[in-house]
Amino acid sequence: MTAVPLGDGREFDRIRAIAAELGARAEGLGDDCAVVAWPGGVLVLSTDVSVEEVHFRREWLSLEEIGWRAAAAALSDLAAEGAAMVGLLAAVTVPRDASDGEVASLMRGVGAAAAFAGGPVLGGDLSGGECWSVAVTVVGRAERPVTRAGARPGDGLWVTGALGGARAALEAFRASGEPAPAARLRFAHPEPRIAAGRWLAAAGAHAMLDLSDGLGRDLGHLAAASGTALEVTLDALPVHPDADVEWAAAGGEDYELLAALPPDFDEAAARRCLAETGVPLTRIGRVAEGAGVRCTLRGESRHPAGWDHFA
Amino acid sequence: MTAVPLGDGREFDRIRAIAAELGARAEGLGDDCAVVAWPGGVLVLSTDVSVEEVHFRREWLSLEEIGWRAAAAALSDLAAEGAAMVGLLAAVTVPRDASDGEVASLMRGVGAAAAFAGGPVLGGDLSGGECWSVAVTVVGRAERPVTRAGARPGDGLWVTGALGGARAALEAFRASGEPAPAARLRFAHPEPRIAAGRWLAAAGAHAMLDLSDGLGRDLGHLAAASGTALEVTLDALPVHPDADVEWAAAGGEDYELLAALPPDFDEAAARRCLAETGVPLTRIGRVAEGAGVRCTLRGESRHPAGWDHFA
Repeated sequence: MTAVPLGDGREFDRIRAIAAELGARAEGLGDDCAVVAWPGGVLVLSTDVSVEEVHFRREWLSLEEIGWRAAAAALSDLAAEGAAMVGLLAAVTVPRDASDGEVASLMRGVGAAAAFAGGPVLGGDLSGGECWSVAVTVVGRAERPVTRAGARPGDGLWVTGALGGARAALEAFRASGEPAPAARLRFAHPEPRIAAGRWLAAAGAHAMLDLSDGLGRDLGHLAAASGTALEVTLDALPVHPDADVEWAAAGGEDYELLAALPPDFDEAAARRCLAETGVPLTRIGRVAEGAGVRCTLRGESRHPAGWDHFA
Repeated sequence: MTAVPLGDGREFDRIRAIAAELGARAEGLGDDCAVVAWPGGVLVLSTDVSVEEVHFRREWLSLEEIGWRAAAAALSDLAAEGAAMVGLLAAVTVPRDASDGEVASLMRGVGAAAAFAGGPVLGGDLSGGECWSVAVTVVGRAERPVTRAGARPGDGLWVTGALGGARAALEAFRASGEPAPAARLRFAHPEPRIAAGRWLAAAGAHAMLDLSDGLGRDLGHLAAASGTALEVTLDALPVHPDADVEWAAAGGEDYELLAALPPDFDEAAARRCLAETGVPLTRIGRVAEGAGVRCTLRGESRHPAGWDHFA
């Protein structure tokens, strides 16, 4: 099986190189989750590594927040598949001078995010190392997993929640300031959209992914995987109160969901999602014939830059 | 559910602290694998992280070997559960100056170990970082998973293969020498005992674990988890040709299996295992009433030291 087509970016070049190297040994690399057929339901799996000085800095977050955030980032991939949480495993690398209490704090955050998503910590591994690093593998189950590859011309493009809050916090941290509380919460304590993902899957979502790389880049992944064009009106974005439209369009790690929903999915349906899951939905564009992503802002064409962990 | 009792060691103190912190959020931490009931079979999962300068050095191994070894170490946990391989996921941290070709080499090793064990690479993640690190999560299935907790007084204690080869290689590497070829192979290219693990599970193994921490410490884990004593005659150990009995008893990372087998499991049964899986079995002792590990060498009491990644 060939890997799922990916959009632009250094990390995705590498994933393509790996998929080419592994050939038939790699199944479906490039989607949010791996999917394994299993009697009585589909098994859904994803792994996500968070590394000190790459994904977080110790002076920005408590260890409990680092653990929560690492687990939430992985759980967000389950949400994007429309899967329920079965459990997670955490492989933690610990600096030599860390105390047992610090390791326990980090794992308290991992455990709290797991409980929030509805499952236990199933297992883990510990190693010494130069810096903190947390590799979280999530296990879920789905009746009908939703991949990135099913968007169809005519579908509406919808996002959950509000965008740009994590980027607003990151900019404040980088400027050696303290983020606004709501923005800081979006960065330190993202809530994986498990319930909304399941609701959207049940509502017939054709394709879904979570916004980790930034809307612009993630739109590219969805378009490439589905073999369609996407048309987005950036004016419609639900912008976090502490962010602006640029950060909402380009900032990564919001861990909201982007879904392609059937044409008849409307504002009334979006209100039902809000009532039943507590998560708002906003329509930001549509799926069209063709390829690539076309964004407009105040009537002018724009290409929102993405988020590159290697940058 | 409380965590599985563990033997001595710094890492295990930390795992106990984490299990205490997580309480009911952690299920069965401390066994080789997490086990999840699932329609149509039991799902078996484990995660294992290999870190540069802790588990390997670049000057000792090629990147392909580093990838193989990291995956084999994780797959060995599936073997210890008597599970079949479904697939694996790899979260890889890559130094900033690494090339795409180097990343692909490492993943070639991961993919080859996966294929050896009978499954695909299901997914992964890539991040930049200070050093190479590979967190491998393995997924398996078992009809009847074999834990560390089932050894019964009267059982025979058996090990697969030969012990001490990895330690012999490590000692040569540390002395800035080149290990003997067979010892180097045991360190660089351990073969997860998936087929032997399944054979032993089908043969009625009461308890099993893989020898990653060193026989002495792993005997301690088995005794603690099963609530029994273990009596081992170190004279009986199958010692790797490049090692001595000290290294066989104390050296870690051999990734052979230690199994508690019913009293009627005999040398004829061991020969059937060899004929059917290619893996030899050696009886090294027995399970007894009580607690703790009693080892003798040439009739004298000995306590084989273990392997501590934090040392």
